[in-house]
Amino acid sequence: MFDLIRSGSITSASGFLAGTVHAGMKSTDQLDLAILCSEATCKAAGVFTTNQIKSAPVVLSHRHISKGRAQAIVANSGCANACTGKRGLIDALAMAELAAAKLGISPEEVLVASTGVIGVPLPMDRIRAAIPRVKLTKRGGHDFCRAIMTTDTRPKEIAVIVDSKGGKFTIGGVAKGAGMIHPNMATILCFIATDALVSGDFLRAALHKAVDCSFNMVSIDGDTSPSDCTFVLANGSAGNEPVDFDNGEAFQEALNTVCTHLAKSIARDGEGATKLIEVMVEGAEDQLWARRAARAVASSQLVKAAIHGNDPNWGRVVAALGRSGARVREDKLDVYLNEVCVVKQGSLFPFNKVDMITTLGNTDNVLIKLCLNLGDGKATAWGCDLSEEYVTINSAYTT
Amino acid sequence: MFDLIRSGSITSASGFLAGTVHAGMKSTDQLDLAILCSEATCKAAGVFTTNQIKSAPVVLSHRHISKGRAQAIVANSGCANACTGKRGLIDALAMAELAAAKLGISPEEVLVASTGVIGVPLPMDRIRAAIPRVKLTKRGGHDFCRAIMTTDTRPKEIAVIVDSKGGKFTIGGVAKGAGMIHPNMATILCFIATDALVSGDFLRAALHKAVDCSFNMVSIDGDTSPSDCTFVLANGSAGNEPVDFDNGEAFQEALNTVCTHLAKSIARDGEGATKLIEVMVEGAEDQLWARRAARAVASSQLVKAAIHGNDPNWGRVVAALGRSGARVREDKLDVYLNEVCVVKQGSLFPFNKVDMITTLGNTDNVLIKLCLNLGDGKATAWGCDLSEEYVTINSAYTT
Repeated sequence: MFDLIRSGSITSASGFLAGTVHAGMKSTDQLDLAILCSEATCKAAGVFTTNQIKSAPVVLSHRHISKGRAQAIVANSGCANACTGKRGLIDALAMAELAAAKLGISPEEVLVASTGVIGVPLPMDRIRAAIPRVKLTKRGGHDFCRAIMTTDTRPKEIAVIVDSKGGKFTIGGVAKGAGMIHPNMATILCFIATDALVSGDFLRAALHKAVDCSFNMVSIDGDTSPSDCTFVLANGSAGNEPVDFDNGEAFQEALNTVCTHLAKSIARDGEGATKLIEVMVEGAEDQLWARRAARAVASSQLVKAAIHGNDPNWGRVVAALGRSGARVREDKLDVYLNEVCVVKQGSLFPFNKVDMITTLGNTDNVLIKLCLNLGDGKATAWGCDLSEEYVTINSAYTT
Repeated sequence: MFDLIRSGSITSASGFLAGTVHAGMKSTDQLDLAILCSEATCKAAGVFTTNQIKSAPVVLSHRHISKGRAQAIVANSGCANACTGKRGLIDALAMAELAAAKLGISPEEVLVASTGVIGVPLPMDRIRAAIPRVKLTKRGGHDFCRAIMTTDTRPKEIAVIVDSKGGKFTIGGVAKGAGMIHPNMATILCFIATDALVSGDFLRAALHKAVDCSFNMVSIDGDTSPSDCTFVLANGSAGNEPVDFDNGEAFQEALNTVCTHLAKSIARDGEGATKLIEVMVEGAEDQLWARRAARAVASSQLVKAAIHGNDPNWGRVVAALGRSGARVREDKLDVYLNEVCVVKQGSLFPFNKVDMITTLGNTDNVLIKLCLNLGDGKATAWGCDLSEEYVTINSAYTT
């Protein structure tokens, strides 16, 4: 129903432009300020951090997107503008106003996102000088992706073209992952731009669904940040038959794919990570418990450390499942490691340990499957291994 | 109201004896099997893991203690007897029967606890040969403590003598901490023996209260084990006026002290740990939220890594608080690091960073205090720093 666009980006959908500059918030001459803009105003929806400590851009963007419309996103890395009090809100609003003035649109149509140092005000003089220098182009998507990176080692972007009954449209997405060097915060930012014509209510619902099965199922270290947010902008320029609840299946599927790809990229690129861990739970009492169980296993520090050492330590997997809150009957539980059964009905199912260690050592994708055999609940979560490198990165004080 | 007993142990209270042997479950000739026995039957209470995967000894001891009576504990290290199916239960019962036969009491008066490898059956031939060799003595308490250690680097034991209005009595306690080398599980075992005369209902309530403010406020790595349990035995031989709800304050206070001491010892001795982290929350809406907030900060991987690097990264503390679920008003929040204010009303309160780094580097006790200024809720939690050593220990596959 949809195809991956080679070298796709946030500007793959028609009518979207992006531009970036080095404003001086990140060291050296790295890109650290970016604008995404649609040629026409868009239907817009957002999902924000559940952390009670919210950064100023989160507060402002939540307010702006509540009307269901937006035309641009201005984002920076190097400074999160979090825990900055009233001044933080004033600065976030100023950033929206500066971008709006450049683009000739209303500040309320601009969404703001910041990632980086916490507790430090934005260097507004640099931002004021930088925004007019941004050159918006159709090819600016890849640079947009780079400009929002902090400790990410790889850019995270994707675009798909959907050939639905109601016509073709494109969805492009970009994300930054969970990297923290002092004093940065773990953050996820994700922006999605589509040229699909889509109803606002459906767009909101679709985004929540997509985030629930993707970003909400990723754990790097269990900490959530005051800056996390995901925005989707839909400008309707594809001229497709309007997408709504009754015909939204193809759109939803493509949006899920975009978000899941980005979520997995974030897990794989977790700080110090060498492996992506995928945890599939099947046969839980219901989907809610399946989700909790999958997340508990994917975020278990002991499971993550074992996987780092290529250690098929299924006891840790079972223990993490047991503390998830999901109902488990030990005598019904089966566990598979990379498709090899290691636990049958709650007890060790003999497997070749030497082979398993070799297999784990030769792959950077580890699949843990848990069959609870109690009901129809299914879910998948993603995480990464825990390495010494993670600790080194996150304990090193750098001035 | 009470005094610490120098070199106190689980046999400090009158009428308790202990003995240990090397049965052959731990390598070399380390002690790995231990019996604690009272000369008379005891009032008994227990608290067990909330993990839905429960080890066989947990299932059996839960059944035995439900009558509120016990006279002995038989414990081993080196094998957890968890995820061992029906055979596990048969073996746990056999262990109780062997100890009962040696002591001349009913198997139902014996509690069983095992810690160590998961998914592997107990070597019953070795246990059968070992139990008759155990010699019970008044001085056996310290060896009992050593025999239940797995990767603990230090023994964890304490005893206090209480001089209450109703007479003197003694409470001794011992615990093993959270150590995991492949394929062991993180486990807490704690046993408390007192000669106080105490009502069974009060004993149960007092133990739950004490565990709630001690072991339930410790986090090494967020994982709970199928083997966790805490038992208290009270033989009444001190001849004090019976302790009950109306006069139990001194008993409760002493029991809290014993459990808190053991809980802090466990946190301090967390694998790879170099520092004890104490998180005090004050001014939360209520105690429940204060507890959750304190635990969230104490168990935050990012906070733990920062403390390891002597990094006063208050942003991570605030972010962990924010995701705890406790209501927080950013503009009312104050944060102190080792008594130095670093956040006032939600924003950076200027402090000397160089001094702070030096202070953190020179201590192995870090106090993080959060004042929410919303209500009367207070709680303290304990954890430890996250070191590269932790990852090395827990990712190394050893055959």
